[in-house]
Amino acid sequence: MAKIGFIGVGNMGGPMATNLIKDGHEVKAFDVVGQTLSRIVNAGAAQASSPADAASDVEAVVTMLPAGQHVSDVYTGTGEVLGNLAPGTLIIDSSTIDVATSREMHAAAADAGFDMLDAPVSGGVTGAEAGTLTIMCGGSAETFARAKPYLDVMGKNIFHAGGPGAGQAAKACNNMLLAINMIGLSEAFNLSDALGLERQTLFDIVSTASGGSWALSNYTPVPELVPTTPANNNFNPGFTGAMMLKDLKLSQDAAQSLDVSSPLGAAATMLFSLYCNEGHDADDFSGIIRMLRGKKVD
Amino acid sequence: MAKIGFIGVGNMGGPMATNLIKDGHEVKAFDVVGQTLSRIVNAGAAQASSPADAASDVEAVVTMLPAGQHVSDVYTGTGEVLGNLAPGTLIIDSSTIDVATSREMHAAAADAGFDMLDAPVSGGVTGAEAGTLTIMCGGSAETFARAKPYLDVMGKNIFHAGGPGAGQAAKACNNMLLAINMIGLSEAFNLSDALGLERQTLFDIVSTASGGSWALSNYTPVPELVPTTPANNNFNPGFTGAMMLKDLKLSQDAAQSLDVSSPLGAAATMLFSLYCNEGHDADDFSGIIRMLRGKKVD
Amino acid sequence: MAKIGFIGVGNMGGPMATNLIKDGHEVKAFDVVGQTLSRIVNAGAAQASSPADAASDVEAVVTMLPAGQHVSDVYTGTGEVLGNLAPGTLIIDSSTIDVATSREMHAAAADAGFDMLDAPVSGGVTGAEAGTLTIMCGGSAETFARAKPYLDVMGKNIFHAGGPGAGQAAKACNNMLLAINMIGLSEAFNLSDALGLERQTLFDIVSTASGGSWALSNYTPVPELVPTTPANNNFNPGFTGAMMLKDLKLSQDAAQSLDVSSPLGAAATMLFSLYCNEGHDADDFSGIIRMLRGKKVD
Amino acid sequence: MAKIGFIGVGNMGGPMATNLIKDGHEVKAFDVVGQTLSRIVNAGAAQASSPADAASDVEAVVTMLPAGQHVSDVYTGTGEVLGNLAPGTLIIDSSTIDVATSREMHAAAADAGFDMLDAPVSGGVTGAEAGTLTIMCGGSAETFARAKPYLDVMGKNIFHAGGPGAGQAAKACNNMLLAINMIGLSEAFNLSDALGLERQTLFDIVSTASGGSWALSNYTPVPELVPTTPANNNFNPGFTGAMMLKDLKLSQDAAQSLDVSSPLGAAATMLFSLYCNEGHDADDFSGIIRMLRGKKVD
Repeated sequence: MAKIGFIGVGNMGGPMATNLIKDGHEVKAFDVVGQTLSRIVNAGAAQASSPADAASDVEAVVTMLPAGQHVSDVYTGTGEVLGNLAPGTLIIDSSTIDVATSREMHAAAADAGFDMLDAPVSGGVTGAEAGTLTIMCGGSAETFARAKPYLDVMGKNIFHAGGPGAGQAAKACNNMLLAINMIGLSEAFNLSDALGLERQTLFDIVSTASGGSWALSNYTPVPELVPTTPANNNFNPGFTGAMMLKDLKLSQDAAQSLDVSSPLGAAATMLFSLYCNEGHDADDFSGIIRMLRGKKVD
Repeated sequence: MAKIGFIGVGNMGGPMATNLIKDGHEVKAFDVVGQTLSRIVNAGAAQASSPADAASDVEAVVTMLPAGQHVSDVYTGTGEVLGNLAPGTLIIDSSTIDVATSREMHAAAADAGFDMLDAPVSGGVTGAEAGTLTIMCGGSAETFARAKPYLDVMGKNIFHAGGPGAGQAAKACNNMLLAINMIGLSEAFNLSDALGLERQTLFDIVSTASGGSWALSNYTPVPELVPTTPANNNFNPGFTGAMMLKDLKLSQDAAQSLDVSSPLGAAATMLFSLYCNEGHDADDFSGIIRMLRGKKVD
Repeated sequence: MAKIGFIGVGNMGGPMATNLIKDGHEVKAFDVVGQTLSRIVNAGAAQASSPADAASDVEAVVTMLPAGQHVSDVYTGTGEVLGNLAPGTLIIDSSTIDVATSREMHAAAADAGFDMLDAPVSGGVTGAEAGTLTIMCGGSAETFARAKPYLDVMGKNIFHAGGPGAGQAAKACNNMLLAINMIGLSEAFNLSDALGLERQTLFDIVSTASGGSWALSNYTPVPELVPTTPANNNFNPGFTGAMMLKDLKLSQDAAQSLDVSSPLGAAATMLFSLYCNEGHDADDFSGIIRMLRGKKVD
Repeated sequence: MAKIGFIGVGNMGGPMATNLIKDGHEVKAFDVVGQTLSRIVNAGAAQASSPADAASDVEAVVTMLPAGQHVSDVYTGTGEVLGNLAPGTLIIDSSTIDVATSREMHAAAADAGFDMLDAPVSGGVTGAEAGTLTIMCGGSAETFARAKPYLDVMGKNIFHAGGPGAGQAAKACNNMLLAINMIGLSEAFNLSDALGLERQTLFDIVSTASGGSWALSNYTPVPELVPTTPANNNFNPGFTGAMMLKDLKLSQDAAQSLDVSSPLGAAATMLFSLYCNEGHDADDFSGIIRMLRGKKVD
């Protein structure tokens, strides 16, 4: 068992750190929110006084932070983590951030002599608690192999997507597809309703035809077809509109800076921006079907 | 075995009629293009002199025509088919047309005392030749049961989608989803390329993650991942851009007339319109990835 | 002064007919809504019992109806207007309808030996009452000259746009531009607000720069810059969202049937569809700025 | 007359500096491209050996650089300009860059005790040569007043848009509107052509109606209506597709970071991205009408 520093123990980081503790690791945790930090200390973590404190004298440090700016601050800015790591410490950044910042962090870690892995997750709070997250990783094969035992404790489907930043890249592409497919499904169900088709029939046909998708089979945006989807529960998340909007923005930032034409990605971003601006940022992202349907709500 | 009238024996109707002949049915065929008609006569069909001639004295009539206007002309206009059917003739319209016209034809058929099924197909020329078409049907359960033996000869996945027009409705929804998912995939692969991910890696990850779709697993728009896709063959169709644009327009006509907001459907229609206007109407629809990529073509 | 049949005397047709009466013409009116008909009779019109009655024994007939289907019904369907006109009667259709139906009506009128003008209007109820409508006309120069004296009574800017259907075509193009420019303005003001610019400053700069438009100078979607705009009056119309959506659909129907790529037209249609579905169909169309801004309303 | 440092003397900066020289100012110039620097030296400028050299011992420094990163490098990075200014030097940044970086530069300048103005221009090479640029300025009223005499030499319409970054903000909003209005016009002319309207007629009507815009009256994307537009000259710029795409990206970066929904801005960005990717980056931006029209080119 290892000593692990964990920085950022909120909704996602908290249960991830808890799973490491349950697996027998010693976790030293830090969070800027005192209440959040208390919760993980109650779950068995040691309380660190700063990011640098959490990261010192451990075998691995895991960060789970909101955006690129925070990650940059923690590692190379005022957080001073890079300067306080013991030699050989493994760095795992599970934050979902832009590829460019992620690659800057990789470069800074390499310059300082450390192995780093970007390892953004998907699966939401439920997946974090159950230890069933999907984790997409970027870094060398050796670093991936070093990190794998820890990742296996926090997730279930662990992918090595390629070199530095590849985990971020893969997640951005995947979630952009999820958003596009979900909006498409919403339009198709609304159109199908208007045309008088039974929803079960549309579901049965499209599931086995060329319009099928993971989103249709597992996250249908209308109720009663797939149990347990947010559509059955008044669009309680699940995966919020705000989180999907964040991921879409990351995809579009990358697309724009690399001159990649992404018309449906841009349209999806715009639609989730409308969805969040209307006050649905904390609702499940699949609830966008209601915005598209307007007042004609079932 | 039955006597069947077949009106419209072109790229799709020709092989469909041929499969009926091979199954032992007597087919009486008509087409406005002499050469097209000759081909099916050479394959064993009797030559009819007009739509009405093809439709008279048969147990079932099948139509496979380009658009709603043609279907309307053939059944209730100058084609005079409805007025020349023997009592009890079964009507199967396999044309892909707008739901409104399809329902008008159902109503006219019912008024004249005939059972009718709208039964648009998907699967392309290859599927028509192999008898493996997907067929989505609208009409009563009884009519569907009457038509099933014939449909089984021409297709493989035969769905009863609901009442009159439901076949058209289901196909419009499915193909709109296919178009949206395919454009999304194109954007994702272009972005992934620009970010430096391996295509095989993106494919492997997304296939098992929340961004997955039938289109990704079976019709990947980049070469070397899935054998036999048009991407491996310079985007020879397959399913042409022009056909996808036609189906998208049907979906958007329905959406607009029914006040259904379909932003990604509208964007997809616009993009396939650009694709066709640039001269790619006869290329496979998945070739839209090249238009999105621009000059930076692999 | 002339005898004029007027069919459709609602919100727009009513004040237009009233202006003809005030100018000294004898108006014989018909409307399917009894209350609407009573109102114009009180204003001095003779009451007709049917469209055909209104149209018989007059020098000119004017129609102001909601959609192509109604116009077609009135002239060549159950309304039987074409069959009941005295020789030489001038036909003016001021309805805003699709170009295709308008051209069919022109052809039917020509076949029956009558001069016809399509003459859709813009300017809203206010313009109809004040006799300051903009009227865009399609038909021969001779027909336009015959109609001009009547049009001058109802409108102010009278354009001869070309042959049959040209009035509809010009209006569809103009209003599509108005919708696009207005949404663009809404986005620009929302962005400008977020960036901390003064609205008056943005207005002053853009008005004299390359981003200027009629919509900015005359119909600014934020209050206090241009007096009398709906933005100063809680988006009371003015020109409703539903009417703009209708015109946009006409533009997109034409674009799709003619294979014209209209990406911003399609996007504008989708956005006004969302706007109306959210319950703003009776609000002014410029209120779409509020939908785009979301909860962050001023 | 004053001593002025000028950093970045390419296509735009070169003629701007030349106009300062012609007006009697002593200009000390720097550019990373030797040939570019030689040209302005031939026009009468003194040759500086570095940005810091150009900026030292002058009364005002003007920068005209491609992007935020360059501006940041020059002022606060390796260019070391801020550290080498004489007390009281006025800073004018005429680069078109993102608002965020511009505000960072303002803050750094203020910290170092200098007055700064962001002053991005529009009007293209022609306007730069003729001294008729439009210049949108951000900074204090005092700084604007100090800079005005120099700006009057380089431009014609000089606006004070507000505090730090306001020039950039105003330009981003204006050019986003220009892009949207131009694409709308392109769609309208293509639709109008397909509907059979005369272009001159559409122009005459819309120019005086509610769809009018600066772009229509001054930059019509079809030939023969307004002399001297790029449409009359095979879309030689003028203002290139690449420059419009750059400005649109700046608008969308700001919109996304501020959570402003900008659906038509996003669509315009995507369309100009396609236009540039197809090889039209050096063509005039109004040539996008040809891309939208496809092969059906006049």
